Amino acid sequence: MIDAEKFDEWYNEIVEKADLCDKRYPVKGMNIWRPYGWRMMRNVDALIREEMEKTGHDEVYFPLLIPESYFKKEEDHIKGFSQQVYWVTRAGDNELEERLLLRPTSETALYSIFSLWIRSHADLPLKTFQIVNTFRYETKMTKAFIRVREIHFFEAHTCHADFEDAEKQVREDLEIAERLFKKLAIPFMISKRPDWDKFAGAFYSMGLDVLMPSGKTLQIGSVHQYKQNFSIPFEIKYEGVDGKHYYCHQTTYGMSERILGAIVGIHGDEKGIKLPSSIAPIQVVIIPILFKGVEEKIMEKCRELEEKFRSMGLRCHLDERDKTPGNKFYDWELKGVPMRVEIGPRDMEKGVITIAMRDGLKKSIPEHEVSKVIRELEQYDARLYENAEKYLQESIKRVEKLEDINTPIVEVPWCGSEECGLAMEEKTEMKSLGVPYPEEECQGKCAVCGKEAKSWLRMARTY
Amino acid sequence: MIDAEKFDEWYNEIVEKADLCDKRYPVKGMNIWRPYGWRMMRNVDALIREEMEKTGHDEVYFPLLIPESYFKKEEDHIKGFSQQVYWVTRAGDNELEERLLLRPTSETALYSIFSLWIRSHADLPLKTFQIVNTFRYETKMTKAFIRVREIHFFEAHTCHADFEDAEKQVREDLEIAERLFKKLAIPFMISKRPDWDKFAGAFYSMGLDVLMPSGKTLQIGSVHQYKQNFSIPFEIKYEGVDGKHYYCHQTTYGMSERILGAIVGIHGDEKGIKLPSSIAPIQVVIIPILFKGVEEKIMEKCRELEEKFRSMGLRCHLDERDKTPGNKFYDWELKGVPMRVEIGPRDMEKGVITIAMRDGLKKSIPEHEVSKVIRELEQYDARLYENAEKYLQESIKRVEKLEDINTPIVEVPWCGSEECGLAMEEKTEMKSLGVPYPEEECQGKCAVCGKEAKSWLRMARTY
Repeated sequence: MIDAEKFDEWYNEIVEKADLCDKRYPVKGMNIWRPYGWRMMRNVDALIREEMEKTGHDEVYFPLLIPESYFKKEEDHIKGFSQQVYWVTRAGDNELEERLLLRPTSETALYSIFSLWIRSHADLPLKTFQIVNTFRYETKMTKAFIRVREIHFFEAHTCHADFEDAEKQVREDLEIAERLFKKLAIPFMISKRPDWDKFAGAFYSMGLDVLMPSGKTLQIGSVHQYKQNFSIPFEIKYEGVDGKHYYCHQTTYGMSERILGAIVGIHGDEKGIKLPSSIAPIQVVIIPILFKGVEEKIMEKCRELEEKFRSMGLRCHLDERDKTPGNKFYDWELKGVPMRVEIGPRDMEKGVITIAMRDGLKKSIPEHEVSKVIRELEQYDARLYENAEKYLQESIKRVEKLEDINTPIVEVPWCGSEECGLAMEEKTEMKSLGVPYPEEECQGKCAVCGKEAKSWLRMARTY
Repeated sequence: MIDAEKFDEWYNEIVEKADLCDKRYPVKGMNIWRPYGWRMMRNVDALIREEMEKTGHDEVYFPLLIPESYFKKEEDHIKGFSQQVYWVTRAGDNELEERLLLRPTSETALYSIFSLWIRSHADLPLKTFQIVNTFRYETKMTKAFIRVREIHFFEAHTCHADFEDAEKQVREDLEIAERLFKKLAIPFMISKRPDWDKFAGAFYSMGLDVLMPSGKTLQIGSVHQYKQNFSIPFEIKYEGVDGKHYYCHQTTYGMSERILGAIVGIHGDEKGIKLPSSIAPIQVVIIPILFKGVEEKIMEKCRELEEKFRSMGLRCHLDERDKTPGNKFYDWELKGVPMRVEIGPRDMEKGVITIAMRDGLKKSIPEHEVSKVIRELEQYDARLYENAEKYLQESIKRVEKLEDINTPIVEVPWCGSEECGLAMEEKTEMKSLGVPYPEEECQGKCAVCGKEAKSWLRMARTY
């Protein structure tokens, strides 16, 4: 892992060096996705879609532009977002009659239509999602994948007959996150955000955070229980079995390209990025080690192996460039390819292939047991996860007093009042992530006021 | 096929009835993609990506917002698009220092960066594409998938060392179109657009058009040779093998959701849409024909068959809704599912399954020969294509004189002058699609001025 002090500089450089993005586009906070980075993102999207399909969500696509009048229907929501909104005011030579905003998130676009789609209890639950570009005029310093102004955004929106069914959805979303982030080899924490930091318009918000090597946490997802906060202004009603009309309960689940930022950051080292095989555009790269006289035989073996890997369903690349093996190793380590296979004359004589995993493990495999590489990739993914999990667990500590804090993440006894929560933030120069989920009993005294604690409050420095 | 007079009304209704889109979104020309329509579109995208990958194009994603100064670099381009552009002028409470436009197409976003990506002849050809939302403030009447203001857009952009290599790219693009539209069962014509109708900034444009049942043609794609028209203002230069610097030659290839509009329109009938199996979200629907006493056995057989179809790689759905078989037939015919499989007690006794193709063909297949359904789907796709091809061929006629026109599409001898071309448009109330490609010799006299014809001019009424 990259040292904390060096991390931010390393990160800013590696995203371009590894060909993930190009930051030279002339609009602040809007970067170009290069082919390699975009393939990683699309592989993440594919995993998300797989989870969504399994859990009965339908994919939709709503327009980018939202009329100002729609946006203004929910009061807290507009308060939260109005400073971050890009406005379209003209088209051609005409001033628009009503201003349109670029979606910062799509509640207000979807919900007026949901009120047309939902008629009766038989239409519930309605489970939808979309993967779209959203826009936020961020005032904080921008950072590739982590704080951008055009966001590659996943948003699930659901409607339910009652609060308990919406609560079930929140739990399902957290299970989806559990499965998804395991595949991506990024351990995360769930915290119920304090009221002063919940999503604009939400009844409550659950934040999903990872710990970056800098010692700061990064929110890579959030799940919100809206209760009826939106369904009332947007009139999303259904007829119950009793013939009466009720407002729906709603939830959302959001994620973004920050997932990529987390993968890049958490698993990186001095050599470059380290990709889990689930999203690596190239899972196995084959490097011929050529010697005079046997070039043709070696290339033949390489091609045979490439064919074999492809037939096993692996994303495989045979590097035939006119470069030294050392230079090729360097390139693919930089780009985080999980497995490198070297084929030279000695290997061929012995009937083995040499594999080198991106995390350092190297071994020989008999050629007739080549199907074992699948298992090697799984074990490599597991190691990535375990190392990150170890770092995360070592970085969290429960303390009774604020003076005892000496880890990036702490959990402190808290009386539950906003006053004490904000006081802790000020004294520690940390932010409240919220109450750890699943919640555990806390029997201490509030670290500020000394009253009976209601829960732990998890805190960290954040991106 | 739908009658010409009824077509437009039928089309406007069917896109909503078949659950492709919802036109009730309150911004003109911006519709909501419903799950079924969006899956069709994503399947089209997947076929496009497959072709792009095969031909060595890399997928990128460039920002949506383009600074005004970039947009203004190519003069003809801005003339062509300035009336169609949406402008972002504000963000939060701030007036932006430089106005940003929503891409109507992405030349001006990509090309300033291409000038950074391309250094030497070794970087060429550069072959990229993206699938993105673009925006055009259309003044003509909007129509779902056919004329919208937020467009689901495919655009390939390539850079080449010289004109001939760019020409090769144009030919490759037309071959891609050939393969792609065959899979989508939509026959098309290629025409080299007349100069007065080429893309804003292009050296020349090739239009890909289909004939809709209304008798009007619809452009479903275009391929442009830019020569150095953009590379000069955007300074896209490379160092040749001789050490000197040269401007690149460029091409683009564009397509959109109009492809879906064409599929819906061309193959539709009174019962609904008719999807080629290549993009059908559901390729096979299984309908249990239940009778008292044998329900469980029939359902078991249905599930077994569903499993079987899935293992064959088919997108299969078992319709277990509490509706009559007749109602189910109606629903799935409306939505264009290529194959319906009915399972009832009589079929089970005989050990056969009954298949009904969406175009009317019905037959029994012995259960142990169930793998034959793949062949049936292929033949169904081929029939869709052939019927459409027949309609297209019957609708084109070459005539010597404008008075003889009695088909939706005509080819007329043309001297090649803009004056005569525009005169033909006026007299016939048709639009010039351009010179048929591949070009065939024309020995007649120009239908307007009577001079020696240089080529045929293809004309039609258009969307």
